[in-house]
Amino acid sequence: MLSIIGIGLASPDDISVKGLRRVRAADHIYLEGYTSKLRCSVDDLATFYDHDITVADRELVEQSDTILDHAQTDHVAFLVIGDVFAATTHYELFKEAREAGIETDIIYNASVLTAVSTTGLQLYKFGRTASIPFRNNDVTTPLNILESNQDIGLHTLFLLDLEDGQYMTVAEALDYLTRNDKITDDTRCVGCARLGSDNHTIRYGTVSRLKEADFGEPPHCLIVPGDTHFLEEEALETWACERFK
Amino acid sequence: MLSIIGIGLASPDDISVKGLRRVRAADHIYLEGYTSKLRCSVDDLATFYDHDITVADRELVEQSDTILDHAQTDHVAFLVIGDVFAATTHYELFKEAREAGIETDIIYNASVLTAVSTTGLQLYKFGRTASIPFRNNDVTTPLNILESNQDIGLHTLFLLDLEDGQYMTVAEALDYLTRNDKITDDTRCVGCARLGSDNHTIRYGTVSRLKEADFGEPPHCLIVPGDTHFLEEEALETWACERFK
Repeated sequence: MLSIIGIGLASPDDISVKGLRRVRAADHIYLEGYTSKLRCSVDDLATFYDHDITVADRELVEQSDTILDHAQTDHVAFLVIGDVFAATTHYELFKEAREAGIETDIIYNASVLTAVSTTGLQLYKFGRTASIPFRNNDVTTPLNILESNQDIGLHTLFLLDLEDGQYMTVAEALDYLTRNDKITDDTRCVGCARLGSDNHTIRYGTVSRLKEADFGEPPHCLIVPGDTHFLEEEALETWACERFK
Repeated sequence: MLSIIGIGLASPDDISVKGLRRVRAADHIYLEGYTSKLRCSVDDLATFYDHDITVADRELVEQSDTILDHAQTDHVAFLVIGDVFAATTHYELFKEAREAGIETDIIYNASVLTAVSTTGLQLYKFGRTASIPFRNNDVTTPLNILESNQDIGLHTLFLLDLEDGQYMTVAEALDYLTRNDKITDDTRCVGCARLGSDNHTIRYGTVSRLKEADFGEPPHCLIVPGDTHFLEEEALETWACERFK
């Protein structure tokens, strides 16, 4: 059996009660360790779960049959940070398990894709999500997504890259986006850090203000609002940089 | 203190471990009972939480100060089905509490907005979410949203109405959408029921096929895919109506 379990965004106790029961009953636990990072240590998780954890790299998940082989005979729990299917690779594991006749279950959890609603921007008005990479100097893809969303008044969420333990910051993302003239120093954006944890930071202001704001520890993300309802405007004002100077 | 706590999509044990701890420590528990419905009874929840629960109607949340007044002196837990801020009304409660100087915390949880990824459609490629109402015979708004999303290749999720304990079904939603000629009997869609629970149903097929499919108990939702990657196509085929005849 394969249980694919979302473990939430920040601390060991973000797992659901049902998920914790599944984890404790499992014979093997794998933690997906390459598309996202925890805000606690793997040891903290192992202690909370009272169970050994194997950190799975991309090769183990995508190129080997180790996990599915185990799941043929034993109960395997595959843990994903946030919700379960934000990354294609985790969906493929689920699909392959079903195709191999392995019993599967899915335990859902919170995701940054809905935690962005803490800003006061309405979830149903977000368009396609964009990612800003460290390595690619071609800014067209994220900006094309922004432009398509803006054309129909939608908000755009930018997820920021993680590579070799390095997280992209709001300031770096803004540097990247302002290489083009679609976003200027006067564009109003929302920067977020550690969404889903008890100590999130949210700031609303112009690009030049946000570049100076201190967002603290990662992960960060960035939102460029589309057309806003007055209730959204009022909510954004509660996070205005001016209030935190 | 006001804790706003997402309790997930289906069963009492979908609450997070952290959320359960907050609920059990609270002096008063309100359950939001008018934008969504539980798949278990309130008594089941109260037993699981070992705590009395007051079901809050729209008037109590939006027109009275009862909840904020309690939160000035006591610890109030406000429970929301799914994730916390899918509905504007819950965000307003959070904003008013902050403005009144009441300590707040938010416990996130799973949402149908990310559970739709179980279909294999990639979350970052969804556009604006539409709702299909029972009462309004004007189909332009949902269809305009669909058209805007389709113009830029995005998937469209339709959430289906709940009114006086009546849930709209996939078949009713398809009847509604096919009153216009943008969706025909040959359009390929994905119908879902009870996403986030152990016994979800997902079916992919033409409108005419889906109208005949048995989705079982509510809640249902409907997705019209936009441009699909081949991995998304492969995933959708695993839910094809043909496989379940």
